[in-house]
Amino acid sequence: MPELRRDPIVGRWVIIATERARRPSDVGREPAPRQGALCPFCAGNEDKTPREVYVAGRPPFAPANAPGWKVRVVPNRFPALKIEGDLDRQAEGIYDRMNGIGAHEVIIESPDHDKALEDLPVADLTEVLFAFKARVLDLRNDLRFKYLLLFKNHGHLAGASLEHAHSQLIALPVVPRQVVEEIEGARRHYDLKERCIFCDIVGQERKDRSRLVFENEEFVVFAPWAPRSPFETWIVPKRHESNYEVEPKERLGQCAQALGTTLRRLRAALGNPAYNFIVHSNPLRDPPSHSYHWHIEVMPALTQVAGFEWGSGFHINPVPPEDAAEFLRKVAG
Amino acid sequence: MPELRRDPIVGRWVIIATERARRPSDVGREPAPRQGALCPFCAGNEDKTPREVYVAGRPPFAPANAPGWKVRVVPNRFPALKIEGDLDRQAEGIYDRMNGIGAHEVIIESPDHDKALEDLPVADLTEVLFAFKARVLDLRNDLRFKYLLLFKNHGHLAGASLEHAHSQLIALPVVPRQVVEEIEGARRHYDLKERCIFCDIVGQERKDRSRLVFENEEFVVFAPWAPRSPFETWIVPKRHESNYEVEPKERLGQCAQALGTTLRRLRAALGNPAYNFIVHSNPLRDPPSHSYHWHIEVMPALTQVAGFEWGSGFHINPVPPEDAAEFLRKVAG
Repeated sequence: MPELRRDPIVGRWVIIATERARRPSDVGREPAPRQGALCPFCAGNEDKTPREVYVAGRPPFAPANAPGWKVRVVPNRFPALKIEGDLDRQAEGIYDRMNGIGAHEVIIESPDHDKALEDLPVADLTEVLFAFKARVLDLRNDLRFKYLLLFKNHGHLAGASLEHAHSQLIALPVVPRQVVEEIEGARRHYDLKERCIFCDIVGQERKDRSRLVFENEEFVVFAPWAPRSPFETWIVPKRHESNYEVEPKERLGQCAQALGTTLRRLRAALGNPAYNFIVHSNPLRDPPSHSYHWHIEVMPALTQVAGFEWGSGFHINPVPPEDAAEFLRKVAG
Repeated sequence: MPELRRDPIVGRWVIIATERARRPSDVGREPAPRQGALCPFCAGNEDKTPREVYVAGRPPFAPANAPGWKVRVVPNRFPALKIEGDLDRQAEGIYDRMNGIGAHEVIIESPDHDKALEDLPVADLTEVLFAFKARVLDLRNDLRFKYLLLFKNHGHLAGASLEHAHSQLIALPVVPRQVVEEIEGARRHYDLKERCIFCDIVGQERKDRSRLVFENEEFVVFAPWAPRSPFETWIVPKRHESNYEVEPKERLGQCAQALGTTLRRLRAALGNPAYNFIVHSNPLRDPPSHSYHWHIEVMPALTQVAGFEWGSGFHINPVPPEDAAEFLRKVAG
C-alpha cells in the first residue's frame, strides 16, 4: 500500500509509492519506451491494460476493451495511489502519515501510436477534454477525494515513460499545498478588489498584447508575466468559471482548438520539446468560486530544476515572456 | 540587466536572466562541458574567470589570480543577477517587477579537474565549507541582500554545465518564499512546544535509527521522513544553531567529514548520480533564532519533475527513506 507522509516542517505531502520501483538501486533506470505491437495503449492491445473506466468513439453495444474507440481511460497499471481502503491517519512520533488512497488513471488520447495530441482533429481533441470532464464528474462522487489533478507528461525529459499519446489524472485525499496557495492568492485579490485576479490578468494581457500568443472566441493564450520556464504558456477561458468540469462541450471545443494550436506552435518553435501541461481547477468539495478561475498551464521541459530552484522556489528563466510570445505569434501551427 | 518578476497570484519571484541565453530557440541546447586545458576552473587558467573574490591555500604575498590555491571563489561569468545598481521596484499594471540585483559567485572546490568534492581530504573539504562561511560574512555587509543561498549542482541532470567540481552562491534582495515557509513552519512548532523542530527531529532519528545513515560527534546524517526524491539525505548539526556562518572551523571540519561520507556513499550506492545540495540557513537580516536550525539537504537527481509535481507540489517517491538509509548504512564510503 502506498503511503502519504507529511513533512513536519513545511507540511508538504509526499507519496511513498514503493510498487513503482523494485529495488532502491533500480531508481532512475527506467525501462525504454515500448512501441508498436508491444505498446499497451495501441488499438488491438486493450488486454494489456486494466479494464477501461471510460471510452469515447466506440459504437453503442460494441464489446468493451476492444478496438473501435477514440479515447480510452484506464486505471494506471503502476498507480501512485490505490483506490481501495481507508485513509487511517496516524502519528509516528512527531511525524504524520496516512494510507495512499486515491485514483490514478491514464487517458489514452488516440488509438494510433504515431499521433500526437496536437495532431488530432479538433473534434477528437475535444473528446479528450470531454473525457477529462467525465472522469472528474464520476470521481467527485467518491467523498474521500478532495482534489483531482489532470496533467500530461510528454517526452522523457518531462517524465513520460511511454511515448503513445496519453495524459493522466490523480485524485487525492488532500488538497495539495500548491493548489491551496493559488486559491488563497486569488482570494486575497478578491477580498481587496472584488474582482477575480485571472479576469484582471486576461484583461491586461488582451490590452497590452506583448505576451499574447493567440485568442479565439472563448479562450486567450499568453506567456505569463513571471514564467518559471522558457515558453511557459497559459490557456485561460475569457468568461469567469472556477470549475473545469462544468464547461459545456462547445466551450471544451474552443479550448481544444486553443490547446492544439498552442502545442503545435511550441513544437514548431522548439522542435518537439518535452512538456507538461496541468489543468488548474477548483477543489472538488469547494463551492463554485468568484475568486478562482480554472485554466491550463503548459510548461516545456527545457531547463533542469537545479539546486537554486530546489532551495529557493525561485526560478531562473533566460527567456522573457515577451520574446517567447513574439516567437509563438509568428510560427505556424 | 536581469529582472525579478513576481507572479501576481502566488507571489513567486522569477529571475528573467536574458544574458544567459542568446536567442529564445537556443534554450535547452547547452554547450558541452569543457575539459582539460579549456576548463576555466583548472589551475593555470585563472585568467579565464573573473578576478577572484576569495582564495584559500595560496601562500601569503603570492600573486592573486595565479596557481597555488586550494579553493577559489570568483563571480559567475554568466550571472543570474547583477551586483551593481538599485532595486527600482515598479508596477506594470497589476504586475510587480524590480531590477535583478544580487551576487552570483562560483566556489571552485579544487584546482584539480578530476577531483570530486567527496574525494578531497577532510582538511581540504573543510576549506571549501570555510570559504562558504567567509563569503556569507562578506556579502552580508551589503544591506541590499536579504538571503544568501549556497548550493551545488553536480552532473548534467542536476543542472551543472561544467564538470570541474564547484558550488555556487546567490545573494538575493528578497527572502525566497520557500525559505519563509520553512522558517514559519519551524516557528509554529516553537510557538506550540517551545522546542526547535529540527532538534526534535534529530532526537527522534537518533532514537529510532531506521532512517539514520551516519553520525559523528557534531552531525547526524539521515534520510528524512518525507523525502521528495529517492535517497534524499539531510546533514544536521546536533547542537542547535540557526546560522551557518557562525560555526567555528572545528565544527565545519566535522561537517566536512559528514558531507564527504554522505556523498561517497551516495556515489557508491547509485553509481555517481547527479545531485544537488543546498545549505539551509537563517536569513541575513534575522536575529539568531531559537526555532530555526541550519542544515544541508542533499537531493540525488534520479527522477524527473513531471506534471504531477508541477501541479501539486506533491512528490512521488518510489523508495521509502528507511530502505534508502539501510542501503546507505551498508555501502562503503
